[in-house]
Amino acid sequence: MKLQLSLDIIDIADAKALLKEVINAIDIIEVGTPFIIKEGLRAVEELRKEYPNLLLLADLKIMDAGEYEAKMAFDAGADIITVLGVADDATIKGAVHAAKGCNKFVMVDMIGVKDIEQRAKEIDLMEVDYICVHTAFDVQSQGRNPLSELQIINKVIKCAKIAVAGGIKLNTLEAIVNEKPEIVVVGGGITGQKDRRQATLAMREIIDQGGNL
Amino acid sequence: MKLQLSLDIIDIADAKALLKEVINAIDIIEVGTPFIIKEGLRAVEELRKEYPNLLLLADLKIMDAGEYEAKMAFDAGADIITVLGVADDATIKGAVHAAKGCNKFVMVDMIGVKDIEQRAKEIDLMEVDYICVHTAFDVQSQGRNPLSELQIINKVIKCAKIAVAGGIKLNTLEAIVNEKPEIVVVGGGITGQKDRRQATLAMREIIDQGGNL
Repeated sequence: MKLQLSLDIIDIADAKALLKEVINAIDIIEVGTPFIIKEGLRAVEELRKEYPNLLLLADLKIMDAGEYEAKMAFDAGADIITVLGVADDATIKGAVHAAKGCNKFVMVDMIGVKDIEQRAKEIDLMEVDYICVHTAFDVQSQGRNPLSELQIINKVIKCAKIAVAGGIKLNTLEAIVNEKPEIVVVGGGITGQKDRRQATLAMREIIDQGGNL
Repeated sequence: MKLQLSLDIIDIADAKALLKEVINAIDIIEVGTPFIIKEGLRAVEELRKEYPNLLLLADLKIMDAGEYEAKMAFDAGADIITVLGVADDATIKGAVHAAKGCNKFVMVDMIGVKDIEQRAKEIDLMEVDYICVHTAFDVQSQGRNPLSELQIINKVIKCAKIAVAGGIKLNTLEAIVNEKPEIVVVGGGITGQKDRRQATLAMREIIDQGGNL
């Protein structure tokens, strides 16, 4: 099980400072969508230089021009890109085509998908690497979280690996981990904490134990 | 009726060179999604400096963190941002809130929306400025185009203004213009032509005539 740190920071120097604190306790660095909006793929390039061997995900949330936009990010040094589950099949397949050509990976972000079970089954046949259930930041305040969607796709996904994102904190992590996703994505649960290194280590410990409920 | 040029170029110098050719024949400069992925909001800032008074749209295709991401782009100089129609209502409303706080504008991009009529009716009540029907680049090769969706939303939209995008070329423009959208978005129909200025002027003429079928 991998811990992905979603950088909800939008400044390259700040991101590097945070990564210094936590780098040996995470598996994947995610360059978040606002970070890409602010800095463009320069953010990916800079972090790639700093960490040549760590998995780097560019959260592009691609909705169109799948092959073209994915290729741009792979060329900049990303290992994994995200494409939206609400995108047309042709867009997801385009991103997969780009990934296969570069020996890189595609994660489908299921944010906003209405029928998670049906769409996950469809996408699972498209040779994507990861399917990520994701509770939008904008709806977390309504008390929604990704656990129930995680349980749904766990029952239907046969090919892709599973990722989970959306407001995961230390006190909700164990229930998530018990569902054995391949990747757990954490943003504010680390970046919003007073002691970010301590928060990361505490999460790392729960992930390494694999949950014990 | 306004002509919006979608810059499917990803280099700031190239974009400026194209704009020099066509600027007096267009109404809105769109910084396209790949351009933002490549350069970040620097692309918006640079074009804002060059053209202080022209309407500038940042095609962010926001899917989450609506208020935050919209505000970032408005602060960088954008007049209009795009948010996805497939996003949660809370995300669209967040973008609208940011726009109202800055006296700026929100366009909802209906790309990927399955039930255009129903969703357009819902979004029309959210105080957005524009609703844009948009045939994805990735499905244009299947022969799909935005005309029929434009006709559908023309019948149901009461508050927002209407925009249309997706593979519009000189030979398909007149049918589009006859539907009287507020904004016609053209990308490759200009940028992919041998004589880009001539293509722009030809489109301008059809738009100014308001169609005559």
